[in-house]
Order: sequence, then structure tokens, then C-alpha cells
Amino acid sequence: MKVALAGLGTVGAATLAALLKQAEKLSLSAGGETIELTAVCARDKGRDRGLSLEGLRWYDDPLEMARSPSVDLFVELIGGDQNSVAGRSIFAALESGKSVVTANKDLVSQCGDTLADLAESRGAFLGFEAAVLASIPVVETLRRRLPTKTISTVYGVMNGTCNFILTAMQERGLDFDVVLREAQERGYAEADPSFDVDGPDTAHKVAILSALAFGTKLDRDSVVTHGIRDLTLADVRRADELGYCLKLVGVARRTEDGIEQYVRPSMLPKSSPLAQVSGVLNAVGFIDEQAGPCLMTGAGAGAEATASAVLADIVEAARIKGAPRTAFDLPSKARSPFVRSSQGATHAYHLHLLLDDKVGAFARLAQVMAHNGISLSSILQRSPETKDPEHQRRVMIVTHDTRHEDIRAALSQIEKENLTSEKIRFFPIENL
Amino acid sequence: MKVALAGLGTVGAATLAALLKQAEKLSLSAGGETIELTAVCARDKGRDRGLSLEGLRWYDDPLEMARSPSVDLFVELIGGDQNSVAGRSIFAALESGKSVVTANKDLVSQCGDTLADLAESRGAFLGFEAAVLASIPVVETLRRRLPTKTISTVYGVMNGTCNFILTAMQERGLDFDVVLREAQERGYAEADPSFDVDGPDTAHKVAILSALAFGTKLDRDSVVTHGIRDLTLADVRRADELGYCLKLVGVARRTEDGIEQYVRPSMLPKSSPLAQVSGVLNAVGFIDEQAGPCLMTGAGAGAEATASAVLADIVEAARIKGAPRTAFDLPSKARSPFVRSSQGATHAYHLHLLLDDKVGAFARLAQVMAHNGISLSSILQRSPETKDPEHQRRVMIVTHDTRHEDIRAALSQIEKENLTSEKIRFFPIENL
Repeated sequence: MKVALAGLGTVGAATLAALLKQAEKLSLSAGGETIELTAVCARDKGRDRGLSLEGLRWYDDPLEMARSPSVDLFVELIGGDQNSVAGRSIFAALESGKSVVTANKDLVSQCGDTLADLAESRGAFLGFEAAVLASIPVVETLRRRLPTKTISTVYGVMNGTCNFILTAMQERGLDFDVVLREAQERGYAEADPSFDVDGPDTAHKVAILSALAFGTKLDRDSVVTHGIRDLTLADVRRADELGYCLKLVGVARRTEDGIEQYVRPSMLPKSSPLAQVSGVLNAVGFIDEQAGPCLMTGAGAGAEATASAVLADIVEAARIKGAPRTAFDLPSKARSPFVRSSQGATHAYHLHLLLDDKVGAFARLAQVMAHNGISLSSILQRSPETKDPEHQRRVMIVTHDTRHEDIRAALSQIEKENLTSEKIRFFPIENL
Repeated sequence: MKVALAGLGTVGAATLAALLKQAEKLSLSAGGETIELTAVCARDKGRDRGLSLEGLRWYDDPLEMARSPSVDLFVELIGGDQNSVAGRSIFAALESGKSVVTANKDLVSQCGDTLADLAESRGAFLGFEAAVLASIPVVETLRRRLPTKTISTVYGVMNGTCNFILTAMQERGLDFDVVLREAQERGYAEADPSFDVDGPDTAHKVAILSALAFGTKLDRDSVVTHGIRDLTLADVRRADELGYCLKLVGVARRTEDGIEQYVRPSMLPKSSPLAQVSGVLNAVGFIDEQAGPCLMTGAGAGAEATASAVLADIVEAARIKGAPRTAFDLPSKARSPFVRSSQGATHAYHLHLLLDDKVGAFARLAQVMAHNGISLSSILQRSPETKDPEHQRRVMIVTHDTRHEDIRAALSQIEKENLTSEKIRFFPIENL
């Protein structure tokens, strides 16, 4: 199997090193099928990567390499969506019947099912274990569970940057901005952190896992996404005092009327397994109605971990040569359309608010909640013995199971009526 | 693909139901390859299993079914070692080039590598995901990680019976015997619990995971195995007070001079991920030097979970028909011999002892420890202000990293010299 490698960044370089140094071992693992790196492509041929590229054919244009008749497997480690050169190269490779291995989360979450259909029709292999939490083998795990279609929920804490920030806020009592700067200095966050902290990274992972778990088409755009940027230290501290951790949680859940997908800062009871995933660790879990729950925890997706997942896919492609396979099995005709749940998830919500001084403010608040169908499970108002009058006005409420839209509607009504003198803070409580 | 199912106990019945009711879905998942159950075999044809066996060929003898030319895949859910009818049937099926799926941990830990070689030579598929912690897809995960051979340790809390007992002792303060009876009443423990509580069940899992993780031949007999039967409530309470959980931990570790495999009641810091696996939950983790650590937690191996893993293997066998595959890749020629580490693991040990009244007893104890190369990290003796003289004689010691044999040698010397008036309790501290 002749392998062509596009992209020689940190992941590409680690993959290159393994393909050059461990070729024999990899081939043995593939049942004797020779795995031979024959071509590479990157932006800058001259850059020193600490490895000789001698004997490898160099391409400046990945698209040309993807179409080359002397390539059997195209490994894409450039990044970019379906309109980028990376995306177009993958389509070109599959169209000409070549197998593809990629670590491209953006592309896979956008059109992984289309790529899978194309691979299937051309009898090619498509592997993307490296695209989702490379150090945790969740893609392959879900693919194997798919035939029985018994998974009801897939979820996780899947962004190391967000989890590092929230853990540091909780454990060290630092403000969001301070920790973000530290994360940037340590290389855990990008200069523009929005892809991580505003949630799209997690949303992309949710979309892929959802399609894998439920055997549906992808629908990345329907993932309801809230990030962690406006979380305050007060939010985190309050959650901590009440026995919760605030984490950015991504969930895809099969309901009676369709699938719901969301990413939200959520309160997790400290004793829950997911709450114990701290720092840059990631975790992804699923509930299989037949086999029970399973939670997988691991480091995130460093270059080495990603290269390792890429290599596993390469070996798999070589081993089952001639047997097409994509991680998006079911095959196209067995795949269901994506139907978005209209109901939406219900959660117990934790609300924190600073009640206005007006007489009857609380009564009116309770009325608005009731009017929106929200029933209250517990209410805590500070004891009137407190000297600080502002303290007396702080109210904490936990609701019974409620839909997100109902909470939002009630809260915007409450804020419109100036019943509170501060923005109401509210978080769903997830029992995962 | 014509499937024959041997064994219709709880797992067999659940597998039977799925194969009868979901045949079409499974076939679609297998890329359109028809999966058709054609024959079954069990001890009692007449028993009511709630499902019609009409249209299926019945065999009284699994061996005859395994050899039948009209069978492509032999599913073994009977149980028994290589000399049992189950074992002989599997050998017979593979010898005639049929693929095999089995949930038989005893057989796989005994001769899984031999079965894999046979499957490879006959171009057959051999699947046994269901044989190890069925609800956690660890077999397939390790198979995929194998090519790079970068796993250094595989470990886990892998016996639900033991974990239920130890958790109940710690959380509810009950004696071993009391909890064991409760576990038996609840169906978590067998009438003869020795396979679970004395460690062989965990040892078998360790042997399989070790061969999978390191690509070596199996060596089940070299797993050093200690069970939990003689753990006292005092041991568990003491560990709890010091911030540890006592759990039955199985470990396989690659060292410089070979592989060490052991099963031991160990002290885990409560904050460690493994300590948080309680009750009948199981967990298995591995440290991949390239991709980082990964821990997978799940329910144990109930009938439904086991059937689910069996089905995943059946679909896989159908999908890659013609491409041989065993979970014990590497192929035979790439597999290393098993070399047992002669060094043995080193751990910090926690010791608890009741010192004799003799003058100089402690000095002599320290001398014996030093003579065996054991250096002490911390020593705690009860304050002499305590009125209770026996209390004063209680000593707790934590050693620096020490080999198990050195600890044993020192302790047997100490006991021979009657320096203590009670058996010395000692447990390794695992940082997993």
C-alpha cells in the first residue's frame, strides 16, 4: 500500500517519523501488507523537520498528489473545510478510489457522511479516529456498537482548553480572563480562543459522535451551542459551594421525536464520574441500553496522540485492503435521516438571582415561573438576620425538570419587568 | 454468512433473540452481507426459551455442528477450557476454516494465541470481545493500538464481585462474610465464589490484556495472584481513614527485562480515577507512551452486555469476510515470546503491625527492614498519652519503593522473631 502524506505540521511530522522508522512493524501488524510512504506534500519543502525526505516524491499541490495513480492511501493532515484544498483533495482521492485517513474534525463534522458514501461507492476505506479526541478510541468503539443501534445518549467533556480554564477557576479561584491568558501562554489555548471557548469545537465533536452513535446523517448546524466565555468566578464558586463542578458538556440524545444535540456549561454533581475529569483531560461516554454505560477518559489530542490514531487507521486500511470500510457505517442505505427533536431536553436548572427591593417581587417571580410551566423544587433565600441587605436579596432556586426554552422565556420576562437588579445566572444540572 | 450458535444460556438466549429479530439490521451493518442464523445447539432441546427455534437445524453435539460444511461462523457460548467440548469445538471449527466468535474467557486466556495462529493459517476470523469485560470495548481498542507497540501498562479493577464486596465493606462497614452472602443472594457472586474472590478471574483477564497490549504470547500461569478473601474490615477501615480505597487491582506492565503480571488487593489514593470505580462497576486503563493514558469504565459483563459484544464480533466477521482477522494481531510471526520480568514491581507499601512489648522490638524491626534493603518513608506510632497500652503498640509504616519479595522476606523474619503479636497487614500502594 503506497501512502501519500499531506501536511507536515506537528502531527504530520510525528506521523512521518513513524512511517519512516516503523514501516516494517506496521506492515507486520497489517498482516504482511507492505505499508510504504512514497510521497509527501507540505507548504515549505526547505524546512528542517529533522528527518530526511530522500526517496520520497515531493508535491507542492496536495490535489495533484491525491490524484496521482501511484498513491493507494491519502493521509490528510492539513486541515480546512470542504472548500479548502484539504477538503477538495480528500474528495479527489476518494473519487479516484483511493483510501483516505484524516484528522480533520472540521471537514468530517461538516460532510463526513457524504465522504463515507463516496468511499462506499468507490470501495475505499475512510478513517478518521484522529478527528475526535485522538487519545480516546471513541470513533471505532461507536462504529462497532452501531449495528444493534442500542445507544441512547453520547456525551462528554471534550475540550481540553475549556476544561483547563474551568478547573483552574474552581481550584485556584482565578478569573476567566486570567486563566485564559495562562492557557494561551502554556499553549493550551489559541491566540484567538473562540473556537474552543465559545463551543464550536465541542459542537463539531458532538455532531460526529451523534451520527456515529445513532446511525443518522450529520447535522452539525443543529447543535445548540453555548460557550464558557461569560462564566464568572462567582458562578464557579457558587456551583462549588453547592457541591457541583461547572463544565462545558456536549450531549447528543435520542428522544422519542428525534435527536437533540447541545453544548452547554452545566452543573455536574461532584460525585459524578464526569465531574472528576479535570484539567486538560477529556472524557466521552455513552449509554447503551443493552450493554450499559461506558465512560472513556484520556488526554486530549496532542500531536503524538493524533499521530498514533492516524497510524492505527493506516494499519487498518492496509489490513482490510479490498474490504471497504468507513467509520460512518452504517452504509448509506442503512443510514437514517437526521430528525431534530422538537421537544428539547429537560433538566433541573439552578438559578441565582438578586431580587429587586420592590414589595411582592418574589411573588411576581414565582407567578412568572408558574405561568411558564416551571415548578420549583427548592428555594433558598438568605436569612433575614444577615446585616447586609444585598445579601438578603440573593435567591437560589432549583427547578424541577424544565425545557431550556421555558426557562429562557421566564427569565426574559422577569428581567423585562425589572424584578432583579443583576443578570440572572442559570445552569442546567446534568446527571452524567 | 451462515451462523451456528452453540449454547443457549442467558447470553446465548439474548444472542439468539437478536439474531432472529434483527437479522436485517445486522446484515445492513455488515455492508449487505447476509447474516443468517441456521443452526443451534444446547443441552436441552425441549426447554422453553420464549423463542421459536423453527427453521433452525438442531444439534445435540456442538462438535458435529462446528464441523458441518453448511456453517460459516461458529458462535461458542458454552464455556470450558481447551479440553472441554467447547474448546474442542472451537479448534474443530477453525481447523475447517470457519470463523469463530466466543465469550469464553477461560479458553482464550489459556490458548487464545494458539487459536489466533490457527485462525490466521486458515484465513478465518476469531473474535472474543465478549470474553473480557463485555461492556467495555477493550479488546478491539488494544488490537488497534498494537501496531505501534507503545503501551507500557495495562491495568484495571476488573471483577465486579470483588469490587461490590470491597465497596460495601468500606461504605457500610460490613464484614467480608456478610457482604459475600449478600452478593450471593443478589446474584453478584457464585455459590462457590473462589473464582472471583481468590483472583483467578482477574488473572485471566490480565493475561489476555497483557498479550493484546504487548503483542506477546499468552502466559496465564505467570500472573502472580492474591485474592481478597482474607481482607478484614479493619484493613478496609484503616485504608479509608488514611485516604485510600482497597481494591483488587490487576496489572500487566512492560519493564526493561520482561513483562510482569499480577493481581493484588492494593491501596489506591481516593482521588485516583481507579479508586472512584465502585460497586459492580469495572474499569480498565492503559498507558500509551505515545498517546497518553486512557481509562474506560463500564458495567461488568451481564448477559445483555455480553450478547451485545458477541453481536459486534459477528457483524465484523461478516463485514470483512475473506479478510482474516483475530483480536490477537499481531500475526504469529510478529508476536514476541512472553518474557517474565525477573525484577518484579516495586511499590510503596503500607504496613500495619502490633508491636510486641519487648524492649528494643522496634529497633530490631527497623534493623530487619534495613537488612532487606527496605527504607522507610514514614512511621506512625500512637501517642504514649493514650491510656490503652495495646493502642500504643500499633505502628503504621509506609516504605519507599520496595519489591514484593523483599517485603515478604522482611515480614516473615519479623514474625519468626515474634516481634509482633498479630499478623502484619501490608498492602502495596498503586498510583493508577
